[in-house]
Amino acid sequence: MGKIKVGVAGYGTIGQRLADGVALQGDMELVGVSDIAPTLPVRALKEKGMPYALYNALPENNKLFEEAGIPVSGTLEELVQKVDIMLDATNAGVGAKNKEIYEHYGKKAIFQGGEKNNVADVFFHGYANYEKGIGKQFLKLTSCNTTGLIRAVDCLDRYVGVEKVAITIIRRVADPGDYHRGLTNALRVDKAPSHQALDLMTIMPHIDATGILVHTPVTHGHIITVVATPKKDITPEELIAQFKQHPRIRVVRLEDGFLGNAALFKYARDLGNPRGDMYEIALFEESVVKSGKDIMFAINIPQEAVVIPENIDGIRAAMEMQTDRLEAVGLTNKYLGMGKWMTK
Amino acid sequence: MGKIKVGVAGYGTIGQRLADGVALQGDMELVGVSDIAPTLPVRALKEKGMPYALYNALPENNKLFEEAGIPVSGTLEELVQKVDIMLDATNAGVGAKNKEIYEHYGKKAIFQGGEKNNVADVFFHGYANYEKGIGKQFLKLTSCNTTGLIRAVDCLDRYVGVEKVAITIIRRVADPGDYHRGLTNALRVDKAPSHQALDLMTIMPHIDATGILVHTPVTHGHIITVVATPKKDITPEELIAQFKQHPRIRVVRLEDGFLGNAALFKYARDLGNPRGDMYEIALFEESVVKSGKDIMFAINIPQEAVVIPENIDGIRAAMEMQTDRLEAVGLTNKYLGMGKWMTK
Amino acid sequence: MGKIKVGVAGYGTIGQRLADGVALQGDMELVGVSDIAPTLPVRALKEKGMPYALYNALPENNKLFEEAGIPVSGTLEELVQKVDIMLDATNAGVGAKNKEIYEHYGKKAIFQGGEKNNVADVFFHGYANYEKGIGKQFLKLTSCNTTGLIRAVDCLDRYVGVEKVAITIIRRVADPGDYHRGLTNALRVDKAPSHQALDLMTIMPHIDATGILVHTPVTHGHIITVVATPKKDITPEELIAQFKQHPRIRVVRLEDGFLGNAALFKYARDLGNPRGDMYEIALFEESVVKSGKDIMFAINIPQEAVVIPENIDGIRAAMEMQTDRLEAVGLTNKYLGMGKWMTK
Amino acid sequence: MGKIKVGVAGYGTIGQRLADGVALQGDMELVGVSDIAPTLPVRALKEKGMPYALYNALPENNKLFEEAGIPVSGTLEELVQKVDIMLDATNAGVGAKNKEIYEHYGKKAIFQGGEKNNVADVFFHGYANYEKGIGKQFLKLTSCNTTGLIRAVDCLDRYVGVEKVAITIIRRVADPGDYHRGLTNALRVDKAPSHQALDLMTIMPHIDATGILVHTPVTHGHIITVVATPKKDITPEELIAQFKQHPRIRVVRLEDGFLGNAALFKYARDLGNPRGDMYEIALFEESVVKSGKDIMFAINIPQEAVVIPENIDGIRAAMEMQTDRLEAVGLTNKYLGMGKWMTK
Repeated sequence: MGKIKVGVAGYGTIGQRLADGVALQGDMELVGVSDIAPTLPVRALKEKGMPYALYNALPENNKLFEEAGIPVSGTLEELVQKVDIMLDATNAGVGAKNKEIYEHYGKKAIFQGGEKNNVADVFFHGYANYEKGIGKQFLKLTSCNTTGLIRAVDCLDRYVGVEKVAITIIRRVADPGDYHRGLTNALRVDKAPSHQALDLMTIMPHIDATGILVHTPVTHGHIITVVATPKKDITPEELIAQFKQHPRIRVVRLEDGFLGNAALFKYARDLGNPRGDMYEIALFEESVVKSGKDIMFAINIPQEAVVIPENIDGIRAAMEMQTDRLEAVGLTNKYLGMGKWMTK
Repeated sequence: MGKIKVGVAGYGTIGQRLADGVALQGDMELVGVSDIAPTLPVRALKEKGMPYALYNALPENNKLFEEAGIPVSGTLEELVQKVDIMLDATNAGVGAKNKEIYEHYGKKAIFQGGEKNNVADVFFHGYANYEKGIGKQFLKLTSCNTTGLIRAVDCLDRYVGVEKVAITIIRRVADPGDYHRGLTNALRVDKAPSHQALDLMTIMPHIDATGILVHTPVTHGHIITVVATPKKDITPEELIAQFKQHPRIRVVRLEDGFLGNAALFKYARDLGNPRGDMYEIALFEESVVKSGKDIMFAINIPQEAVVIPENIDGIRAAMEMQTDRLEAVGLTNKYLGMGKWMTK
Repeated sequence: MGKIKVGVAGYGTIGQRLADGVALQGDMELVGVSDIAPTLPVRALKEKGMPYALYNALPENNKLFEEAGIPVSGTLEELVQKVDIMLDATNAGVGAKNKEIYEHYGKKAIFQGGEKNNVADVFFHGYANYEKGIGKQFLKLTSCNTTGLIRAVDCLDRYVGVEKVAITIIRRVADPGDYHRGLTNALRVDKAPSHQALDLMTIMPHIDATGILVHTPVTHGHIITVVATPKKDITPEELIAQFKQHPRIRVVRLEDGFLGNAALFKYARDLGNPRGDMYEIALFEESVVKSGKDIMFAINIPQEAVVIPENIDGIRAAMEMQTDRLEAVGLTNKYLGMGKWMTK
Repeated sequence: MGKIKVGVAGYGTIGQRLADGVALQGDMELVGVSDIAPTLPVRALKEKGMPYALYNALPENNKLFEEAGIPVSGTLEELVQKVDIMLDATNAGVGAKNKEIYEHYGKKAIFQGGEKNNVADVFFHGYANYEKGIGKQFLKLTSCNTTGLIRAVDCLDRYVGVEKVAITIIRRVADPGDYHRGLTNALRVDKAPSHQALDLMTIMPHIDATGILVHTPVTHGHIITVVATPKKDITPEELIAQFKQHPRIRVVRLEDGFLGNAALFKYARDLGNPRGDMYEIALFEESVVKSGKDIMFAINIPQEAVVIPENIDGIRAAMEMQTDRLEAVGLTNKYLGMGKWMTK
């Protein structure tokens, strides 16, 4: 089998990272990306010398690209025809419209968390329900918080079984450089239960989940506290040991200077990761405590990059590249360079 | 019995509010306040025409007060001699030193949450353990988060019994106008369990408590999510109804615009409350959810003013003004004007 | 002459403060305020016992007020008929529509900075061009930044003459408790010249003004740096002395703890000012420096309350209550309690 | 001449970037870096596989490095002996102590802005006074704000001559991930004139400079507004054209989405720059306005990386690698990849 041909619709925060992640996969080929205007990411693409072909999803904007000196390789429809599968990272609601194009050309597609669940055949998470995505035409990925949360809960669940979780999401309100959303000197409470808890139950229906989400005026990562009721008693040390073996979870220590979301962002920058991104969620080791038989802990969700691995898992499932869950996620991890820090 | 004579040491964020709260009590007399330098609160006191006599706890700074044109009525020692009881709201650690003065003159005193527990005979909360403070010479109050948290947990505990709580404290990192502490675009995780959970167990030893604290860069109120395991099942409606009957808990609705800590601060300002303060904690009605038999909810803690009522309760207990808990807190509430908003 | 009857349309951040300011004037009577929904300020009005009659400007919302238990005294039209002059503090653009009602009933009105200039007969500032407002039917006030800025520039101009100013506005991006606007960890630059510079030139056409505005994620006050070219040389000491004699300008010292906008907000709260408001702008004394013959300084603009005095001046002008500028502003100041801190 | 051997003392925010910048120079060799503890940057160095040799400047901490599994190549003294010149990026004050080591071994060194001026023979800026640094043993670089500011002022000065500048520095208060410093919902004014204005005059004594600095709670870049009095009249278009030809100044447009400091940070991340860094300052094109004969504009200073090019220029000067200013800075630019975006 030749390389799977992949296109990315929407070259924003997520779309850029999807493109870069796909380009790293030895068994995939990034055909191109599409957007509708010469946004900053598109201008950066040009300044980098157009490593990816750009398609314009809004032909009436061709003039804008021309004025900005940005070469356009065709329309979104033309991109779709060249690929096996599209990753749709357009704004919420646009994916549902694009789906008509994907259907028209009989192509597969993966949608992001902002789309409604009914856009897809299955609500997907690489680690938690890989099997359900195999061969499907349309997958929808969980959103950033849910993706990261499920990694942790799934890890715990496979080890000891989980009955229920009560989560508190301390949500970063905007990404760095986002001038459209913002919050200034305020915490904002959302109506409970949070959609992340409900989404978790869609993926893991055997677990009872609820939660409260509070927005905070920061940009570098969500922090979630989880109160989990395991089926069997588990010590903090056991939980930490389990998480240490997971290639998509970093266990970090406050004592070493990993004091919160901004320290993790700084560390990823200092690692030389492109954009200072981190694919892994992090567990703060000193946060793990017992509450009766429940276990409580805090994790960090790097919202800009966390969903990339699971999206790539989604390609593997939808395209039936691998039928074994661990083989699939393992390949994704290998090509993304994940898990090198793990204890051996 | 004449009015109880009260002095306040330390005229900062808490000290100012203690003085104002005591001055409102019909059965207490505020003799004076002390500080060590012409800080902004002291300058404001002067601009208001010295409604309270000011004592200088650091005589070598007399010249600074003189230069600022601020009249000084004497030393801290002189203030202590004139009162029945001191409220000590000095910086952490200073209270332990001041205690020697209080002991020397045989006066009672109440210390704040920043002091070590061993500074006092009892760790006190007006609603939760009033009886333990009766007649004691030295009380220590819980800190702002713990004070507010215990109000909620005690209310639930007296109704249905509480086995354990797991809390997530989303902490405001500094008060408005505080230039000494700060956090910029970062969430910071503390080592768990948080001291607030441990303190709760000191006051309410029959409850198992743990928790994680995360600092956030805001100034207008802590938000705490509580996952409580009650002894008997309780619906959200029942919990809301109980909290609505508590004069120190406001039940507010997101739907009405009470979206978070900053909305509550704004509302208190619009109420015309001095300094825009609020003595009450708030329960966000739409945050209450069930997690199996556990119940989860979010409360707001207005950190600047929340401890004032319980401090005044402390005076009532230490001075044996009332021996009945509900009579004591009821009088405090009446003089502070609390509970007027309650459903009838 | 009896008291001038005043109504306030729009009971938001500015409207509430206008109502309170008018209610303090011995020669004015606040007839009532209007709004369109049971917002938090309206709910606070109710909790305070309805000190002001409330009129509903959107009759189809009567049911919402009813459900919230808030008594309504009539419609906006009915309020207009009862008054001599309306202060219109509705959202930008609504004032222009309300103007039709004011015209229909032959009433005068004052609009806020958000409306377009052509809504009014004159663009007004109490200190800078009082005379132009005398007897006019429709005035438009300058916005918060411009109002505060003009106070300072007018003070300097009357003393020594000003040729030109170049300003940098370091703008607070939202008010406390505002969840609709926000900015998180970002500075945002606006296209220059800023409208405040242009507006200043409309009020003071003999001065050349330009400026750059940068939004910052804070809530407690704008800070403006001014580079002014005076007609005659002036020392920092002279400028400070002039500003000290202005009842709407506070001269404060970093050395005393007035370190920035948040310190001033805290101080106003500690003064016991309702809502922690301050009507005065502040000059930071240690910021005044010379740049050749230019003089440079930094002022603080408390955005929520700064325009109240000039609005009340506007009533005096429009209603011809006083024809002398200094008599008019002096009365406003007296009733608002401004200038008590001044050196004598 | 073989490659110049360079060492870096202090592997923090600046030190890391100095090391990376030196490593990119074709005519220099990075011998190693030193630090005193296994900080996050040192841990990242380890995770990257130790691309640079690490020396421990505090031998009693060897055990900490061992526990963290980080290989140490020797002491700071040993590093010094192996190099021709040291870049000292240790905390303020430490450089002065390290100087004794450098002197002992007769090595040259470059200190950062935090050290006192008397630590060095000359206060240096690559573009503005390269010639003064030639052959000197000890240079001190200007701080980040001053370095960026001088680029702009020097560019204008060489074109048209500058008489005086009045600057307003809107300072980011901490770097991303800095938990030691912070400011929350406050602007803070410093005593004027700011040290940056004074420093500019040290480097460019023919210009009169003053300024006011205001701290703001953001992390991604300082913004400075400059009111410059040129010797000859200059239009905004001319200034923009000059800046466009400067390899260390980017001219960006609000219209294109470069709305402020956070947009520039985001763009640099999207460019794939290591750590999302940008060496260039940026001019916001739409900010340029005239104020009489003065010209006013706003620039962005990326505080983490802006001083790197001038430090490398300093090596060239001190080591007499080039005697021609433009040849020297041109080589630095070439190796750093600067100026590729320039108009041709």
